[in-house]
Amino acid sequence: MKKYNFGAGPSILPQQAMKATAEACIDFNGIGLSLMEMSHRSKEFQAVMDEAQALMKELLGVPEGYSVIFLGGGASLEFCMVPYNFLEKKAAYVNTGVWATKAQKEAKLFGEVVEVASSADKNFTYVPKGYTIPTDADYLHITTNNTIYGTEIFTDIDSPIPVIADMSSDILSRPVDVSKYTMIYGGAQKNLAMAGVTFVIVKDDMLGKVSRTIPTMLDYRTHQKKGSMFNTPPVIPIYSAMQTLRWIKQEGGVKEMDRRASERADLLYAEIDRNKFFRGTAVAEDRSRMNICFVMNDEYKDLEAEFLSFALENGMWGLKGHRDVGGFRASCYNAMSVEGVKALIACMQEFEKKH
Amino acid sequence: MKKYNFGAGPSILPQQAMKATAEACIDFNGIGLSLMEMSHRSKEFQAVMDEAQALMKELLGVPEGYSVIFLGGGASLEFCMVPYNFLEKKAAYVNTGVWATKAQKEAKLFGEVVEVASSADKNFTYVPKGYTIPTDADYLHITTNNTIYGTEIFTDIDSPIPVIADMSSDILSRPVDVSKYTMIYGGAQKNLAMAGVTFVIVKDDMLGKVSRTIPTMLDYRTHQKKGSMFNTPPVIPIYSAMQTLRWIKQEGGVKEMDRRASERADLLYAEIDRNKFFRGTAVAEDRSRMNICFVMNDEYKDLEAEFLSFALENGMWGLKGHRDVGGFRASCYNAMSVEGVKALIACMQEFEKKH
Repeated sequence: MKKYNFGAGPSILPQQAMKATAEACIDFNGIGLSLMEMSHRSKEFQAVMDEAQALMKELLGVPEGYSVIFLGGGASLEFCMVPYNFLEKKAAYVNTGVWATKAQKEAKLFGEVVEVASSADKNFTYVPKGYTIPTDADYLHITTNNTIYGTEIFTDIDSPIPVIADMSSDILSRPVDVSKYTMIYGGAQKNLAMAGVTFVIVKDDMLGKVSRTIPTMLDYRTHQKKGSMFNTPPVIPIYSAMQTLRWIKQEGGVKEMDRRASERADLLYAEIDRNKFFRGTAVAEDRSRMNICFVMNDEYKDLEAEFLSFALENGMWGLKGHRDVGGFRASCYNAMSVEGVKALIACMQEFEKKH
Repeated sequence: MKKYNFGAGPSILPQQAMKATAEACIDFNGIGLSLMEMSHRSKEFQAVMDEAQALMKELLGVPEGYSVIFLGGGASLEFCMVPYNFLEKKAAYVNTGVWATKAQKEAKLFGEVVEVASSADKNFTYVPKGYTIPTDADYLHITTNNTIYGTEIFTDIDSPIPVIADMSSDILSRPVDVSKYTMIYGGAQKNLAMAGVTFVIVKDDMLGKVSRTIPTMLDYRTHQKKGSMFNTPPVIPIYSAMQTLRWIKQEGGVKEMDRRASERADLLYAEIDRNKFFRGTAVAEDRSRMNICFVMNDEYKDLEAEFLSFALENGMWGLKGHRDVGGFRASCYNAMSVEGVKALIACMQEFEKKH
């Protein structure tokens, strides 16, 4: 039976990227050595790093004057690196969930933090809008996709101050006007690569403006100047990113990823809205296309475990919702096929018939 | 032609560990999904994490009261995490090379640093001995193996203050009395795993003693309390570590790795000492078994490039010495076979005959 991986992350990647990564672990480009055992200073790996950075720039239309950096440590490490590098006195944070809250918490160690908006009052089921951005803050931090709650910010904010965005779970799923951001970052383990690498897209001339001394590894300039090779980078995770980026390009780029994301999300939300057993948890206008969260309607609440088992028996993997929301979460990242979404819908309809 | 990988890192790993990692990237344990796309919260990956930690403890005889942690970011990130977590007023550093210098540099951002000994006067060709350890320092930091210069500290130091050791390039190559250390850490990409994961072995009750506030991700307690699962860990690099640890156990453990390291090093240093074309660069008593550094004798200096080409043609890969030392470096990590060392020796002897 075919399995469909709806897990929230680490999550589905293109089959060809996984296959190519496996092959590189055995014999890299036919040279008789595994990429696992090759120096990151070899010309062979330098070519991988160069291509991964170039493809990120090409696919996202990164303007001149920005660098693409690959790091270890995950987006959680960026939560403290961002204020270390950018917070001189005051920073503004929009709170749209657990990860946004965590980012904010780290910033408080470095200066004043203003929470300019929050959707905590309704368990983060919506994206706050119409808030005022303090013009005296060093930057505004947003989380564009909220994996746990299934909400997403689809527009590039016009802001009077630099915008820094955590795009861990929706990067490369739609065109982004990178010029509107000072920095975009994220863990790679959703749309980009296996776990173990973090991407950073940063405007070079915004670095080095804070007065504090920054430990070498936490200073973006270290990595920017050395092309992500100051120390040994996560070689295989970066290789898997390069392979995924190749796949995105080959499939038609970010524009096509955008089209597919809408197609998948439209289909699945339509079924959630139609099927009397289910309802979506996020407000309609802020519904994420990456993480589609839904629950059993109250009158069928006791069927939740049964539906999960039924779905699993039918090959739907990783559907259990996060404990903060409950119910179900169908993560539909770039590599999820429309066929997979249709299979899930068929499953929901069969469950409806059964009861 | 068979290739022998003498690269300094990322470097040779057991064939079976690389093969198993490649297989897991295609289908993990026959469940129909790649480990690349599986949640780190799955019971399947939890079992990997548990086994990797347990094997590190078992193989190194880690006593009760210590934790094994796997992180991202590399040993270079540890250079600032160590003082962040342990330096209250003053720390003592032994300077045995570039990496030790880098570790020391980060510590200076957090307090007073005393360089208790240094071998910089002779380009780090020896390990300083007989130095005085200041009893009022918070810890003594050492680098047990100096990858660039080919020197190694083989004994567990008796110290009146806590010892913290960077064992990036000789961990698991010999028995260590872990109880003599407050912390042992290192990048995994020599004896343990593919690049992208860092190991930390830390005495639990030594954490949380400094008065400063530590960013969440830089605080060892965060990772110790959450079993290295506070955030998404580098899944595949950890899996490759687990596979390598299984191999070490199966081959006879650290004691057998120790025996093999001596066998390889004895053979190769004997040839370096015998062959009139070559000489070792480190003083005899401090010669590393992991990184065997040698140069052409002065009268044959112009044959250096020729020997490198000749060796490469005969399958000897990664032999070029670091630019700070020049000449050649034969890294002989755990997975290097005696056969590989003998092939290199044959190559050196053939070169001798040729000229």
